Amino acid sequence: MLNVNPERFLQSLHDLRAFGASGEGNGVVRPAYTPDELAARDWIGQQMHAAGLDVQMDAMGNQFGIAPGGGLLLGSHTDSQPEGGWLDGALGVMAGLEIARAARECDGPPISVVNFQDEEGRFGVTTGSAIWSGNLPADVADRLQDKSGKLLRDVRASLGPRVTGPVIPAQFHAYIEMHIEQGPYLDNAGEKIGVVSDIVGIRDMTVTLTGEQNHAGTTPMAHRRDAFQGLSAFNSLLNDRFRNVVQPSTVWTIGHVSLSPNASSIVPGRVQFSMQWRDSSADRLDRMESIIRTTLDEIATTHQLQLECSDMLGLAPVAMDQGLIDALAASAASHAPGNWRHMPSGALHDATNMAALMPVGMLFVPSINGKSHCFEEDTDPDDLVTGLHVLADATMRYLAGR
Amino acid sequence: MLNVNPERFLQSLHDLRAFGASGEGNGVVRPAYTPDELAARDWIGQQMHAAGLDVQMDAMGNQFGIAPGGGLLLGSHTDSQPEGGWLDGALGVMAGLEIARAARECDGPPISVVNFQDEEGRFGVTTGSAIWSGNLPADVADRLQDKSGKLLRDVRASLGPRVTGPVIPAQFHAYIEMHIEQGPYLDNAGEKIGVVSDIVGIRDMTVTLTGEQNHAGTTPMAHRRDAFQGLSAFNSLLNDRFRNVVQPSTVWTIGHVSLSPNASSIVPGRVQFSMQWRDSSADRLDRMESIIRTTLDEIATTHQLQLECSDMLGLAPVAMDQGLIDALAASAASHAPGNWRHMPSGALHDATNMAALMPVGMLFVPSINGKSHCFEEDTDPDDLVTGLHVLADATMRYLAGR
Repeated sequence: MLNVNPERFLQSLHDLRAFGASGEGNGVVRPAYTPDELAARDWIGQQMHAAGLDVQMDAMGNQFGIAPGGGLLLGSHTDSQPEGGWLDGALGVMAGLEIARAARECDGPPISVVNFQDEEGRFGVTTGSAIWSGNLPADVADRLQDKSGKLLRDVRASLGPRVTGPVIPAQFHAYIEMHIEQGPYLDNAGEKIGVVSDIVGIRDMTVTLTGEQNHAGTTPMAHRRDAFQGLSAFNSLLNDRFRNVVQPSTVWTIGHVSLSPNASSIVPGRVQFSMQWRDSSADRLDRMESIIRTTLDEIATTHQLQLECSDMLGLAPVAMDQGLIDALAASAASHAPGNWRHMPSGALHDATNMAALMPVGMLFVPSINGKSHCFEEDTDPDDLVTGLHVLADATMRYLAGR
Repeated sequence: MLNVNPERFLQSLHDLRAFGASGEGNGVVRPAYTPDELAARDWIGQQMHAAGLDVQMDAMGNQFGIAPGGGLLLGSHTDSQPEGGWLDGALGVMAGLEIARAARECDGPPISVVNFQDEEGRFGVTTGSAIWSGNLPADVADRLQDKSGKLLRDVRASLGPRVTGPVIPAQFHAYIEMHIEQGPYLDNAGEKIGVVSDIVGIRDMTVTLTGEQNHAGTTPMAHRRDAFQGLSAFNSLLNDRFRNVVQPSTVWTIGHVSLSPNASSIVPGRVQFSMQWRDSSADRLDRMESIIRTTLDEIATTHQLQLECSDMLGLAPVAMDQGLIDALAASAASHAPGNWRHMPSGALHDATNMAALMPVGMLFVPSINGKSHCFEEDTDPDDLVTGLHVLADATMRYLAGR
């Protein structure tokens, strides 16, 4: 057993949230590469160094605290959304740091820590781990822009002398990420731990329906080709048709809608909207896509609208490693008997990318009211500590089984 | 009979469209108080003066060409939408000018012309005639802002020495406005003249539905309070429920939709949208409003959304004067036998405000494909000339009958 220190772990989380503290609850404002975010990274580097780890940073800003020999890698990310919570990825990094420190203190097995950069996607999607894993070529990433039009290439230059050079993935043999659930399942059930079975796949496209812009007073209903009416009819039909295909954890969202010209006295001639759906089965994602495309075609015909679909963003579902699932499940059963579950992750995580490099495991602790990416995000301290113990225990079980 | 000159009339319309010519078809860009719009007004003032009319302008920029004694008033407006057509209100002003000129040339009865300002609502709604009619207090209007935040008070100062002072409404005893239909009825039926029975009433409000902003990956469908889903369900129900209440000319429109935060990966927590409906019966407008409010309440309950409705903008339906309707109908029957109709106006016009001051009549000529408020707006020259003859004839019939 590693002798982890819960008080030291909780204190480090509170110390970290001082960087970019929002002043509202425990909230933080720490998007990738902002001064507060880099200051947090510098402080974490000092903590890694003090724990006896070799601090390295690649050109993207991914930060590693490497134990001699590399070994098992724990971590997540400490950048936040523009309005974020104090736990999110920070939890996995600080838990990893505590466990790596405890392992060094008892001359235990090599356990290293990683703090990925830009998981929240100021530039891409899980940008830092995507590049490190080879899923996103660095030269392509360098041309990505944030919302203000700044290039990643220019912004990451602010890392300056922090960058030590490339970090070789092959020195690590597995990755475990602890994270808050960001959903309501554990909190609603009063459960302490979720052992992640897989990270759901996601498909996302932008749909444009074009009708005819017209005067809202003089254009009779029967003559209209109203793009908003097309969207609304599509949404209703889709909800009906999905009923026989989806499972309880399947989700789909129209989160972005842009009407043109978007004026109360003009029949909308055009609508552009996002259509996103997620599920842990690639087959179900396919069936949903086929329903979406058929329904769009129908609506375009019945409402006399032109239909255009963007290229589809698709990320396949990623299964966690069975050995790591078993180790995490055994630890959860020991520290939260009868009070944990296997579950999919509906959100993307750095673990998605890491699965391209090595066996990957994930565990969740509850999010109070399922809230995240907001200042109210929180988790009971007892649950944070249970998560720490389960992670530490699973790490040792997994290493013992190799 | 007045001896109107169709060539002179058509030439004056083409001369006028040179002010703010868009370079696309016959389109014009001549919003209220812009340099091109004021230059057009100066040129029209010269034409009025040359026709033997006394040119006056009030502090708002409403421009009058007054025959000795005032008499019957003809006109409309020459400001345009940001992207407008060459006819719209310009047609009514140039037709009025031609008829007033013809009346002066033959020493006929007093016929005056008006060119209202800001009918297209850079600041309000039919702003110039609303102020002149007393429907909109001038001090309230002065605080209105355009989309860039400029105050009407400051912008109308650009009129400078053009302003001659207040123009007394009591010197005019009736108002007739010729306008393009801006809808498809006449063009579809191949008819030449629409004699307006009434201008439909309009009600318009902004609705806000507030649910809960959530992560689109981790929030199960059953836990969502998705504001967009609320809007879509409301729209479907409303379309169903209106079926038994509306008549073929009733229209309703959701033309503005604003989601928050409007991102593809976030369940929309809030939607603000416009709900506008128009009909010629105040009673039907009431019944529609009651259905709208009931349906919104239901949706708010079933979708667990907070509902907020803005104050309602309401303009009552306005009936045209029966004497003017009769004069216009007799003239239409004479110049376009079997080829005209009585019809309501689905759009607002300056005539709406003028009805507060004096008997009001309106006639329409066809809009090709029902298009207006765009550069393609057009009408067959033969139809423009038919409109001129019907207006001139109706003017004389009405005066003869007094």
